[in-house]
Amino acid sequence: MNGPEGEAPPREEFDPSGLDADASARAGITATAEPGDPAMGLLLAEHGAARVWEALVHRERIPPPAGTDQGAHSARLERWRTRAAAVDVDALSAQAAELGARLVLPGDPEWPGQLDPLAERRPYALWVRGARDLRHACLRSVAVVGSRAASAYGLHVAGEFGHALAERSWAVVSGGAYGIDGAAHRGTLAGGATTVVVLACGLDISYPRGHENLFADVAARGVLISEHPPGTSPTRRGFLVRNRLIAALTPGTVVVEAGLRSGAMNTATHARELCRVLMAVPGPVTSALSAGCHRLLRDWQAVCVTDAADIIEQVGRIGEDLRPVDGPVLAEDRLDATARRILDSLRGRRWTGTATVAAAAGVGLDTALRHLGLLAAGGFVERGPGGWRAESGARKPHGDRVAP
Amino acid sequence: MNGPEGEAPPREEFDPSGLDADASARAGITATAEPGDPAMGLLLAEHGAARVWEALVHRERIPPPAGTDQGAHSARLERWRTRAAAVDVDALSAQAAELGARLVLPGDPEWPGQLDPLAERRPYALWVRGARDLRHACLRSVAVVGSRAASAYGLHVAGEFGHALAERSWAVVSGGAYGIDGAAHRGTLAGGATTVVVLACGLDISYPRGHENLFADVAARGVLISEHPPGTSPTRRGFLVRNRLIAALTPGTVVVEAGLRSGAMNTATHARELCRVLMAVPGPVTSALSAGCHRLLRDWQAVCVTDAADIIEQVGRIGEDLRPVDGPVLAEDRLDATARRILDSLRGRRWTGTATVAAAAGVGLDTALRHLGLLAAGGFVERGPGGWRAESGARKPHGDRVAP
Repeated sequence: MNGPEGEAPPREEFDPSGLDADASARAGITATAEPGDPAMGLLLAEHGAARVWEALVHRERIPPPAGTDQGAHSARLERWRTRAAAVDVDALSAQAAELGARLVLPGDPEWPGQLDPLAERRPYALWVRGARDLRHACLRSVAVVGSRAASAYGLHVAGEFGHALAERSWAVVSGGAYGIDGAAHRGTLAGGATTVVVLACGLDISYPRGHENLFADVAARGVLISEHPPGTSPTRRGFLVRNRLIAALTPGTVVVEAGLRSGAMNTATHARELCRVLMAVPGPVTSALSAGCHRLLRDWQAVCVTDAADIIEQVGRIGEDLRPVDGPVLAEDRLDATARRILDSLRGRRWTGTATVAAAAGVGLDTALRHLGLLAAGGFVERGPGGWRAESGARKPHGDRVAP
Repeated sequence: MNGPEGEAPPREEFDPSGLDADASARAGITATAEPGDPAMGLLLAEHGAARVWEALVHRERIPPPAGTDQGAHSARLERWRTRAAAVDVDALSAQAAELGARLVLPGDPEWPGQLDPLAERRPYALWVRGARDLRHACLRSVAVVGSRAASAYGLHVAGEFGHALAERSWAVVSGGAYGIDGAAHRGTLAGGATTVVVLACGLDISYPRGHENLFADVAARGVLISEHPPGTSPTRRGFLVRNRLIAALTPGTVVVEAGLRSGAMNTATHARELCRVLMAVPGPVTSALSAGCHRLLRDWQAVCVTDAADIIEQVGRIGEDLRPVDGPVLAEDRLDATARRILDSLRGRRWTGTATVAAAAGVGLDTALRHLGLLAAGGFVERGPGGWRAESGARKPHGDRVAP
């Protein structure tokens, strides 16, 4: 870990030398097990990541989680050991550092707690790249999804929704595909809000290639995340597994345009399983690209939404509910004394390293880190490549924003 | 009433000389009270039509229905007496006869029992014109409604729905307006099924004028009905009151395209109040003409329907339920001996008068009339200007039709 004197980046900035055992283990596991494998999820819950990783790397025995079959467990272990042997965590770390990516672990201040209901299918860790705090970005967010081969109507609606949501300070979470995904992200960025791209490949890979510029914009003004370590190519199955994150990160999912067999219908399934609000945009009954939406309206009790106000009416209260009760405060006057001192120490400065913040506020590095994480999640401070800075007036703390 | 020897038309064919007291009274009352006036409905339920009409015409006292205010009752009686004094039932009857119209009374074989849940707002009587039996036409029917100023999309969908419903032997009930109403009727006629036009004016008035040919087609292959006697011009309020009949005649109402303040939204209200299935067709969220449909989907729990199969799935079972349990039989082998004798007597003949049918079957005129009404409601015989005839093979009895 960083000494108290340096201007080192905060821990989540993925300084390879500063990785603790849990982070290092989870980084390795993202390169070893398929994302969302419940067998690995159960093993991590039972033994902890460091113990599991050590057992894989050193080919040690590790007992199966309660209730799982010993034979299947042994076969899995063998598969994972083979893969783990080929994983170079230091090289992954270096790759991530070069990308400006960080590793966010369950329990970290930036970890979005709404992923926890995924239980044993929760990500082992998230690779995150971008200027915004992931947890904070998702507090007021909606998943906007739909077909790659969208119609002009669908693209128009996705862009309009993104823009109008952004104007009310709601972020959009979606994949990185052409069509509805891209249109929603572009509309949101144009509206001045954060957008979260959930990739099904490593953060170093622009897939599709034509979205390279979009992803660069998102990195500058939002976040890109992936369960996969750098260097991972997308697979068909990866997109489906990825969809559960899009649904889980948000209080609600809007399907803008989807054929009956579209991947967006898979995201809708996840939203329903997670008891999130499922919304669908109607379209002409003569358009096959709206057939999935109409099925959601008819058979899945999806809510019919026609504009951003409709959407916010549905997710507004649930968005509030998702905020942890003891978590980030909403108004500055409700911050505790330490948090306020830290926030004051950042005012009027540009990017400041964690150690400097800690020294200025007269607290230890751990205390500073914990409070900075909470301040970021509350929208008071921003994390960037140079450390931390207070949010500018243009992005006021959450409590001052226009209510939905 | 007609003697047993003549080839007189059946009673419902509105032979002015054959009007019994109830029919004569109800004919007069349709020209006296506003349709659906619950005060008149209650009075008729309490005293019977003949007694009420006599009291109005002869300016006699008639006690108010239980629980109604004496003062308001007197004021209403005075208003009705003034109007009744100007009504010439014989002239109305002659007008109707000239139009080929008949008067259908509650309890008549042709009366659609599904109007009865309207209770005190039930029509006093219906003026009916057209080749088909009203009750039978409505047994498998859906209301298809929407804006006059429909879009090309709405017109296309209404026409397609009408045609596809017709192909599955479902009739359409709607108003007579331009736009969705007209497109639905035309589609249904083109598909070879019956269509029911519910007018808000007298049957002698083609409103709108441009639908004169459409109404002539409907008279030849379906039915036109009205609560208003011949000679009544349409009024704005009349359309709203009329809408309750469209909703009540059918097990379900489909709103194809409607702005937020469209009259179709009023029909939807009636459908909901009557616990009928409410269905809405989605459209582009960018179209104000679909905004009413989307509100029905979002806030009124309307079912999202995209084609005729969706509609039939919703109303199919309820359509069966609406059929009276002891009413028309569904398969010919379930007809009673008298009905079968009457049906046999009509086979191989063209239009036959009631008295001839009675004589051929060896039953009294009343028995013949009652059985002919039930046979018509069951789809076995057809009523026309020349009396009765057996349904041709092209329109098989209901029980032989393709199941929904």
